[in-house]
Amino acid sequence: MNDRVTELAALLLEREWMLATAESCTGGMIAAACTDLAGSSQWFERGFVTYSNEAKVELLGVAPAQLEAHGAVSEVVARAMAFGAVRHSRARVSVAVTGVAGPTGGSAAKPVGTVWFGFMVDGRLSSETRRFEGDRAAVRAATREHALQRLISLLQQA
Amino acid sequence: MNDRVTELAALLLEREWMLATAESCTGGMIAAACTDLAGSSQWFERGFVTYSNEAKVELLGVAPAQLEAHGAVSEVVARAMAFGAVRHSRARVSVAVTGVAGPTGGSAAKPVGTVWFGFMVDGRLSSETRRFEGDRAAVRAATREHALQRLISLLQQA
Repeated sequence: MNDRVTELAALLLEREWMLATAESCTGGMIAAACTDLAGSSQWFERGFVTYSNEAKVELLGVAPAQLEAHGAVSEVVARAMAFGAVRHSRARVSVAVTGVAGPTGGSAAKPVGTVWFGFMVDGRLSSETRRFEGDRAAVRAATREHALQRLISLLQQA
Repeated sequence: MNDRVTELAALLLEREWMLATAESCTGGMIAAACTDLAGSSQWFERGFVTYSNEAKVELLGVAPAQLEAHGAVSEVVARAMAFGAVRHSRARVSVAVTGVAGPTGGSAAKPVGTVWFGFMVDGRLSSETRRFEGDRAAVRAATREHALQRLISLLQQA
């Protein structure tokens, strides 16, 4: 059990807001962590595991031109995913992640471990990037933990 | 790393078929297990974490009347979720799970640990139910493992 999820749940329940997730590199790990907590149906509404570019376009409304111009691992796409997760759900809060988990797929500009995060909290869209160390499992776990931690911070300020 | 996922990946790659997941009680754990494997974008297309009934209807096309008549944890809904996952993706194979992970939500007819599975493999829809022992984490983990194991069996026969 993840203590961060317990804290996140309390903040969402207090505000009566639901959460939706939009995950690429973590592939469902954030949704799985959330729903690990009993009673999560009270605040977790749905999750999108948009692993392919087509899924990002079809489920979240990411524009093909955005993917073409910036690549899937980009601030533009992370923000579009977070926006799309709220737009295409009953949730008022969302988190989106898109990154290079490795071991392949890295480049000079976007090395393995590069992750873009998008957040939508009560109408406010924000984003940030991090570069995590370690192997695929480490990058994915660090991405999940950072996403939960930042959601908590943003909700505390909302 | 899950050995079952490695086997599943080989079977899908051999047939050049993509997989989509539709998860309720496991909340993304099956998608997360699949994408734990490097290179999974070659065979994992997208995942739906349809935790709420609205998500099952809106993302997968489950009929509200089916939910009303049979409940979310039912053969009818598991099959509709599996069908919907293929219908609303680029995948040719899907797995759907809906169950009572507990600790609450159980009933005499559907005690905690009851899970319905739906599968769609190359146009063939199938379903089955299992009753798993243990706490929420145990039921969810057993559900994930059974889903992967059955997908492998069905692909070996396809």
